[in-house]
Amino acid sequence: MERAVRELWAESRDLLGLGSSSLGDTAAAADVPRADLPPTPLAFLRDHVSPGRPLLVSAAGTRHWPAASLWPTASYLTDALRSTAVSLHLTPDGRADALAPHPHPGRPGSTSKCFASAHVRRVDFPTAVRLIRGSDPTAGLVAYAQQQDDCLRGEYAAVAGDVDAHVPWASEALGCLPEAVNLWIGNAHSVTSFHKDHYDNIYVVVSGEKHFLLLPPTEHHRLYVRDYPAAHYVAEEEDADGEHQLRLKLEMEEPGRIVPWSSVDPCPASPEEMTAQAASFPLYFDGPAPIRCTVRAGEMLYLPSMWFHHVSQSPGPNGLTIAVNYWYDMQFDIKYAYFNFLRSLEIDDCSSGKAGALEGDLEKKNDSE
Amino acid sequence: MERAVRELWAESRDLLGLGSSSLGDTAAAADVPRADLPPTPLAFLRDHVSPGRPLLVSAAGTRHWPAASLWPTASYLTDALRSTAVSLHLTPDGRADALAPHPHPGRPGSTSKCFASAHVRRVDFPTAVRLIRGSDPTAGLVAYAQQQDDCLRGEYAAVAGDVDAHVPWASEALGCLPEAVNLWIGNAHSVTSFHKDHYDNIYVVVSGEKHFLLLPPTEHHRLYVRDYPAAHYVAEEEDADGEHQLRLKLEMEEPGRIVPWSSVDPCPASPEEMTAQAASFPLYFDGPAPIRCTVRAGEMLYLPSMWFHHVSQSPGPNGLTIAVNYWYDMQFDIKYAYFNFLRSLEIDDCSSGKAGALEGDLEKKNDSE
Repeated sequence: MERAVRELWAESRDLLGLGSSSLGDTAAAADVPRADLPPTPLAFLRDHVSPGRPLLVSAAGTRHWPAASLWPTASYLTDALRSTAVSLHLTPDGRADALAPHPHPGRPGSTSKCFASAHVRRVDFPTAVRLIRGSDPTAGLVAYAQQQDDCLRGEYAAVAGDVDAHVPWASEALGCLPEAVNLWIGNAHSVTSFHKDHYDNIYVVVSGEKHFLLLPPTEHHRLYVRDYPAAHYVAEEEDADGEHQLRLKLEMEEPGRIVPWSSVDPCPASPEEMTAQAASFPLYFDGPAPIRCTVRAGEMLYLPSMWFHHVSQSPGPNGLTIAVNYWYDMQFDIKYAYFNFLRSLEIDDCSSGKAGALEGDLEKKNDSE
Repeated sequence: MERAVRELWAESRDLLGLGSSSLGDTAAAADVPRADLPPTPLAFLRDHVSPGRPLLVSAAGTRHWPAASLWPTASYLTDALRSTAVSLHLTPDGRADALAPHPHPGRPGSTSKCFASAHVRRVDFPTAVRLIRGSDPTAGLVAYAQQQDDCLRGEYAAVAGDVDAHVPWASEALGCLPEAVNLWIGNAHSVTSFHKDHYDNIYVVVSGEKHFLLLPPTEHHRLYVRDYPAAHYVAEEEDADGEHQLRLKLEMEEPGRIVPWSSVDPCPASPEEMTAQAASFPLYFDGPAPIRCTVRAGEMLYLPSMWFHHVSQSPGPNGLTIAVNYWYDMQFDIKYAYFNFLRSLEIDDCSSGKAGALEGDLEKKNDSE
């Protein structure tokens, strides 16, 4: 089975024109196809949506957006959103919706890791920006303004008119308008762990850069998706040295909830953690390199539905990474049926053994990832 | 494995909107989607090519073809092609490119069946039509004018202008012109056995009707594709009762050649053969009913690449079934990689046992079907 699955990885990358270089050989990893101009709807559908192939469109596609010139300036957004309350996601280390050490690993039945969600607090936008700019993992507080609930047209409606309401060539190709348009404002400390979305995604960077690691859906097994118990950060107010501070603490959700999530951290913080990851998840670390794609200010990345992505970011001169993404309903077709079939198969060295031993003995239930 | 594969069948039919009724329950089998008017290129690409979903377009799409009124008349084609030599495929029973009893089943290493190709003879078109109309399996001779080498623009160039040179909405959607346009002239005695093509296919009936049995590529294992030694019919001239006759005899190809082909005959001639087929190929006979689609004169069937199809036909009032098909190069994408992965997997009761015992002990080599 493992041999057949590895052949699937190689053939799908080959057919997508995305190479199949080894993980160590990142210099040779294939690039996402680039377009200087936005594609026609027909070419986009034929060459990218139908085959499931990403596309990076140059800044020519968003040069007409008022946001392109307005948002990177220091004061425009804080002025426009001076009295707007927004959802700020707080974590100690910038890793929301990611695995974290279980707060009670010693208790009977506990696992070594859990799935940790951010503490979400509604604050006025200027405060959010101050907290984002001041994010510091060494001080235990990283802030990320985001809310994946169509927030650009909700909380941020006052500035939604600064970007196109939809991506015309994508809307025409896909035959619908976006289901959600989200705004993301953070800095270098926020990282999004490997996951996939059931949407066709157009991701536009307005300030700074986003760094994507991508794996096609055929490489599902390399992500070691396992069940983790859900936890969330809660805030404890503190007065230290006469200054009001927030202290975040991880608590298991009650009643318990299980989240299937990728076990792989492609960028471990320490050499020890890297050694442990490589030993536990050989299909990822010994397999073909992930496809790397940096999206610069003004550029748009088409990320096909069901592609796994890990995202880190660099701020622009304003100290912020600002991005907008358009989620379009995906087509649940034969590709989706094939993916579910693939996912239902176990391949020897990822379905048991090391990963299972590391992550505990949870029942596998990957149907709601 | 078998359970996972059966779930793939059900989910892919469900997502394609093609139901999953049981084989016995043909009345409830889902229909191919129909369109009264040809689709726009974008809708065709989005709703049919990308998801891999067939489409039947009404006769409105070909009403402007001169062929629609000219070809069904008795004399038009024989006049236009009076002195044209065409390729006529001759078999004793109307089954070319199909399994037949091995001519030497008793020899060491022989299998019970072989893959039999027609005897191809170049004759003038009026003779071809006379032989097609006189086809009679009880007399051991069935003729079918066809040649899958772009023959409409080759042998039949004199009448190629009676149909559109390509299908405009398909060419625009697929971004290319047809690789081949073929003409098919036969009668009720010619049957095409289950197979798939590496092309996107637009199949247009001009006279009579074509009856398709369809299975999506996800149902590969139900076809029991096995390796068969190739054979072809050779003609022996005979003078019987003072009349010149052709007698066809099956000979194994030398040097030997192996053809992977479906073992399943969905319409066995006798109850005994039906019983043997049902016992040998349970995944086909106990599985969901094939999708049935009758294409009437003037109608066009879009058959996505890699779909398995079995075709029988009924003649029009002129005694002939006449059809044209347009083959467009398929896109080899992630769907194709998934298909090859699926094909590489063996599921217990079709990869060995009954089928293997029936068909002999040939090595499985399904890479050139």
